Amino acid sequence: MKGYAMLGIGKTGWIEKEMPRCGPLDAIVRPIAVAPCTSDVHTVWEGAIGEKHNLILGHEGVGEVVETGNLVKDFKKGDKVIIPAITPDWNSVQAQAGYSMHSGQMLGGWKFSNQKDGVFGEFFHVNDADGNLAILPEGMDPAAAAMLSDMIPTGLHGSELAQVQYGDTVCVIGIGPVGLMGVRGAVLKGASRLFAVGSRPNCINIAKEYGATDIINYKDGGILEQVMAKTNGAGVDRVIIAGGDNDTFAEAVRMLKPGGAIGNINYLGSGDYIKIPRLEWGVGMGHKMINGGLMPGGRLRMEKLADLVVSGRIDPAKLITHPFEGFEKIEEALMLMKDKPKDLIKPVVTIAW
Amino acid sequence: MKGYAMLGIGKTGWIEKEMPRCGPLDAIVRPIAVAPCTSDVHTVWEGAIGEKHNLILGHEGVGEVVETGNLVKDFKKGDKVIIPAITPDWNSVQAQAGYSMHSGQMLGGWKFSNQKDGVFGEFFHVNDADGNLAILPEGMDPAAAAMLSDMIPTGLHGSELAQVQYGDTVCVIGIGPVGLMGVRGAVLKGASRLFAVGSRPNCINIAKEYGATDIINYKDGGILEQVMAKTNGAGVDRVIIAGGDNDTFAEAVRMLKPGGAIGNINYLGSGDYIKIPRLEWGVGMGHKMINGGLMPGGRLRMEKLADLVVSGRIDPAKLITHPFEGFEKIEEALMLMKDKPKDLIKPVVTIAW
Amino acid sequence: MKGYAMLGIGKTGWIEKEMPRCGPLDAIVRPIAVAPCTSDVHTVWEGAIGEKHNLILGHEGVGEVVETGNLVKDFKKGDKVIIPAITPDWNSVQAQAGYSMHSGQMLGGWKFSNQKDGVFGEFFHVNDADGNLAILPEGMDPAAAAMLSDMIPTGLHGSELAQVQYGDTVCVIGIGPVGLMGVRGAVLKGASRLFAVGSRPNCINIAKEYGATDIINYKDGGILEQVMAKTNGAGVDRVIIAGGDNDTFAEAVRMLKPGGAIGNINYLGSGDYIKIPRLEWGVGMGHKMINGGLMPGGRLRMEKLADLVVSGRIDPAKLITHPFEGFEKIEEALMLMKDKPKDLIKPVVTIAW
Amino acid sequence: MKGYAMLGIGKTGWIEKEMPRCGPLDAIVRPIAVAPCTSDVHTVWEGAIGEKHNLILGHEGVGEVVETGNLVKDFKKGDKVIIPAITPDWNSVQAQAGYSMHSGQMLGGWKFSNQKDGVFGEFFHVNDADGNLAILPEGMDPAAAAMLSDMIPTGLHGSELAQVQYGDTVCVIGIGPVGLMGVRGAVLKGASRLFAVGSRPNCINIAKEYGATDIINYKDGGILEQVMAKTNGAGVDRVIIAGGDNDTFAEAVRMLKPGGAIGNINYLGSGDYIKIPRLEWGVGMGHKMINGGLMPGGRLRMEKLADLVVSGRIDPAKLITHPFEGFEKIEEALMLMKDKPKDLIKPVVTIAW
Repeated sequence: MKGYAMLGIGKTGWIEKEMPRCGPLDAIVRPIAVAPCTSDVHTVWEGAIGEKHNLILGHEGVGEVVETGNLVKDFKKGDKVIIPAITPDWNSVQAQAGYSMHSGQMLGGWKFSNQKDGVFGEFFHVNDADGNLAILPEGMDPAAAAMLSDMIPTGLHGSELAQVQYGDTVCVIGIGPVGLMGVRGAVLKGASRLFAVGSRPNCINIAKEYGATDIINYKDGGILEQVMAKTNGAGVDRVIIAGGDNDTFAEAVRMLKPGGAIGNINYLGSGDYIKIPRLEWGVGMGHKMINGGLMPGGRLRMEKLADLVVSGRIDPAKLITHPFEGFEKIEEALMLMKDKPKDLIKPVVTIAW
Repeated sequence: MKGYAMLGIGKTGWIEKEMPRCGPLDAIVRPIAVAPCTSDVHTVWEGAIGEKHNLILGHEGVGEVVETGNLVKDFKKGDKVIIPAITPDWNSVQAQAGYSMHSGQMLGGWKFSNQKDGVFGEFFHVNDADGNLAILPEGMDPAAAAMLSDMIPTGLHGSELAQVQYGDTVCVIGIGPVGLMGVRGAVLKGASRLFAVGSRPNCINIAKEYGATDIINYKDGGILEQVMAKTNGAGVDRVIIAGGDNDTFAEAVRMLKPGGAIGNINYLGSGDYIKIPRLEWGVGMGHKMINGGLMPGGRLRMEKLADLVVSGRIDPAKLITHPFEGFEKIEEALMLMKDKPKDLIKPVVTIAW
Repeated sequence: MKGYAMLGIGKTGWIEKEMPRCGPLDAIVRPIAVAPCTSDVHTVWEGAIGEKHNLILGHEGVGEVVETGNLVKDFKKGDKVIIPAITPDWNSVQAQAGYSMHSGQMLGGWKFSNQKDGVFGEFFHVNDADGNLAILPEGMDPAAAAMLSDMIPTGLHGSELAQVQYGDTVCVIGIGPVGLMGVRGAVLKGASRLFAVGSRPNCINIAKEYGATDIINYKDGGILEQVMAKTNGAGVDRVIIAGGDNDTFAEAVRMLKPGGAIGNINYLGSGDYIKIPRLEWGVGMGHKMINGGLMPGGRLRMEKLADLVVSGRIDPAKLITHPFEGFEKIEEALMLMKDKPKDLIKPVVTIAW
Repeated sequence: MKGYAMLGIGKTGWIEKEMPRCGPLDAIVRPIAVAPCTSDVHTVWEGAIGEKHNLILGHEGVGEVVETGNLVKDFKKGDKVIIPAITPDWNSVQAQAGYSMHSGQMLGGWKFSNQKDGVFGEFFHVNDADGNLAILPEGMDPAAAAMLSDMIPTGLHGSELAQVQYGDTVCVIGIGPVGLMGVRGAVLKGASRLFAVGSRPNCINIAKEYGATDIINYKDGGILEQVMAKTNGAGVDRVIIAGGDNDTFAEAVRMLKPGGAIGNINYLGSGDYIKIPRLEWGVGMGHKMINGGLMPGGRLRMEKLADLVVSGRIDPAKLITHPFEGFEKIEEALMLMKDKPKDLIKPVVTIAW
């Protein structure tokens, strides 16, 4: 079968590979809508997970089941399914402790385009089909549904980590597709005033549609200064970090009220240390909680978040700025993600077999 | 001064009373918008708090500060303020434990029209002004703001008690004004599918506007049967109880999934016992959490919920079906609440002095 | 193979059965220490789970692995293991939601001597060996370790459900083996004053050794009255219910402070309804949380609780009043459990093959 | 009146001051047992709170009420009381949000020897007596009770911040008096294996008596290496930081499992930034929670923790290595704290007037 792969750090291309094999608990799925992710860019061009050869990329997708193992109970050939980016081993001790995304090891639930081939192949393998697949709800557009793999669960996890409560003032730093879902997630956990930090016009528009009340453009000055000015020096209750670097992270701690929390959902790609400003962290005693975590994956998460789409709480279609059709367009879609034109939020490739 | 009072069980009327006196931490407030509540009806016509003579009624209101004690720091004469129905003693051990509404004793934070005269007087007394008042945000309609005293905080507390999570299927039983805010609160905590149980057309319309996805009309059959049919027998993750009796309560337990929770915000007015069905409660081991509680009051709560209104997350004006003008209209407004005409959701009396 | 079974409601006896078969994820285990449980008594003599024929009893035990499925990674033939009474399906949506004990259906994680044969056979079957077994720590007495299957996890779950905090005053109702572990569990979550309700002398002695500060003997008067007298009318912060009936349950609600919680770990075997006293429950608004749940099982739970034994926090050997040796003594041990002589806490049968 | 004061950075001495004045909610207290704290040393010799002149030191103590304001309800002249180091303004919005220690501003609940004179005077002032005092339990030794002001509540807060659960493996870094209470607190929240990091023999002895299972002496090698070796590379579930510097903090993050948490109760006195190692923090997504906070103070906290002493869960007397008698010995006691002789844990000065 064919797949679009990382050939080595900085290099990608189409390759031929053997069909994946289906274990007794597993499923083989054929993609019907897939989306490239900034993580694919980190993987290939920043070497985020180290050198890899001929690793098929992609971890966001919707597909059709073509084969299931003999212990699979709830899915069968022909089912249209949502596949989460994170597919844990559900009987691991980490999953039993409530941290399935770290099953086996830290970040161990991330298997696609990391521990094994991803979803940019003609077929791909899903471990523990009963635990990790969810039926695509009738009538849901597969392209929009592909946002359920990673963008929606990651974005919403920001508010879970930051423990947003009714009426909280929230700052969401970064309004790419994950940050935009961070905005929406904060509204759906009770945020009142909501600062969205970004500069690109179409992202700003969608941030407002999703519920941002104030836009902070870092081109207009420091984001800390702007947030403090807009809050009369009080700062914010929660910060969701979906962009920026280690200096941005320190700013997030500074703008937080005591008793507040940070929810980091951003890949922090450089530097030896994240820096917490000592004085503004209350010399260790300021009760500014610092949380960061990989999205929860698996079946239940997909079902619950799909319900949010079905019931109209989230409209993921707004994210899709660059729709493509045809398996071979995966390459173009990924390159767009790499080059990030100003009007890009999210490309999705729909595939009719 | 004049006030509209409970004269005895079953009897109300206008009375003359001395002006309330302002202690060092307190404020005296003149009402500018007040609303009668079903609780006032329970108090007078059901004897819910026992026999009371010449107790001025009312606990929902917005007003103007006319006097403050000498230890009050943050409020002054002339401030327009929101007054919560519940005004705790913040240094009580109960408040320190996180249950300020029970300061001093169970339900002890409920002082207006219970332990002392309520807001249906020409003036009323607020204990601990710094701890219990909130500035009326500039431009907010006082009539709408009066919904912040009780309807919004009580309604939203349903989802706090029921611990609504992203994507949960939620049933809200009862869609009077509190239940409608229960609906809105569930949406603002991440509910996906949302069953609203009620029958009155204008309540149904607002329930839908607030985010209900399905209406369960108890005139069409048992609510348990309808919920189970609509969920293919799975039941719901959360139930917010804002109406009904002890039998309804038992139904709520039945429709709940293991791991789910009930958030009761309903005054349960009759019977010796609330009944939990033994088998459906897993013979004691079903992890169906049963929570019920009085709304949290105080300043921070008012500020946070006012922010939800300012930021457009909640539109309380939808609740106001019967607006009145003039202090003397309090009587008519209360009688409406007692008689509950079919098209009533909430009367509010606006007062220009 | 041989096993000691429920033949029908009210009847038990030795039977011959085929060896259980090992699926790819499973293990077959030979018991080396097993204990009868009051639940076995409920099953046989109260028909708690309905009519069953030739169902091998028992769900508490330690054993030696004799066979593993080909997908099992962490266990092998010859391993000495602890087997939890509750062995969930870890990829179920209920387990993903944090309620593994209800996997598949309410109480669905309880498989031994319920959905399939229990541990009172020469061999028994364990589903999902990697997810549900734990290595018996070196040097741990198998008889004491058998308390890890059910008594310790159930007892400790009481404090989890009741959310015991530092310094809480706690009442534990019932000091059979589960209640005694309830006492110990409350101490290990920070209880200060601890009322243990019971009457049998050896249970009282162990309750004190485990940390009870006050004994309430129901033969000396109503337990509510005694608790209220000892707390000067304040009541308690938490109640762990490990005994009694529906009237006792109502007493527990009465003795609870607002903001407190009940953790029920008691099988409630009769009556249509559990009763919550309406007035003492604050007419629905008293913030007295009512929680009840089946113990969490599985591997991680066993490992963590075994660590508590190894580190000396819990000494389960104190529970074992009636030790037996030899597989055939299972019958005598079970009958003891049924007849409950005054000095009985827990019988355990050790088996040398 | 006389008091022992900070005269300026690096300088201390006895001074004369006016008696403090008692507001309507306040109390004036005469000390009967006081203890110097490492924080006093930070204040004077490290300039931790900036330059201060003639500020009476001390924030740990037990005393006798000599005067109360006219709004004080629960305390009266002659009452023996415990005074917490942290005395919040209970009606502040921060207290209402559950973070009373930050009332008014970050760390604002810390008033003694910071915002006003401390307890090393012949008399001292307590704000909000009803909210911040607790009756000294009958028969409790005042010297031991003085540990309730700061050592016990701070130590136990470590486990609250680190969210210790049943069976967790916990590392407590630093076993001075706060760290020792961190050890005890971890046991009383369910820790199983417990690594205590320290080197001084008498601290090690008490750590073991309080429940440490393993001692890590940093003189024997890196503490990270030792912890990883003792856990076969798995790391620990929780780290309570009660000593060390920013490098130690980074080690704590490294030794933590995903899903684990840090509870910092250590004053971090130098450097611009606390450093979180990026890779070991899962490039931002490892779910290693980083919490740090000032102790909760106030009346309820004192009452609850005093109950833990009364019920025998905590024996604070073990901490007192250097008892003194007489008000004038405060100087010697503080100098001991500054010089930290090897056998010092905690000096306490008992005062008979």
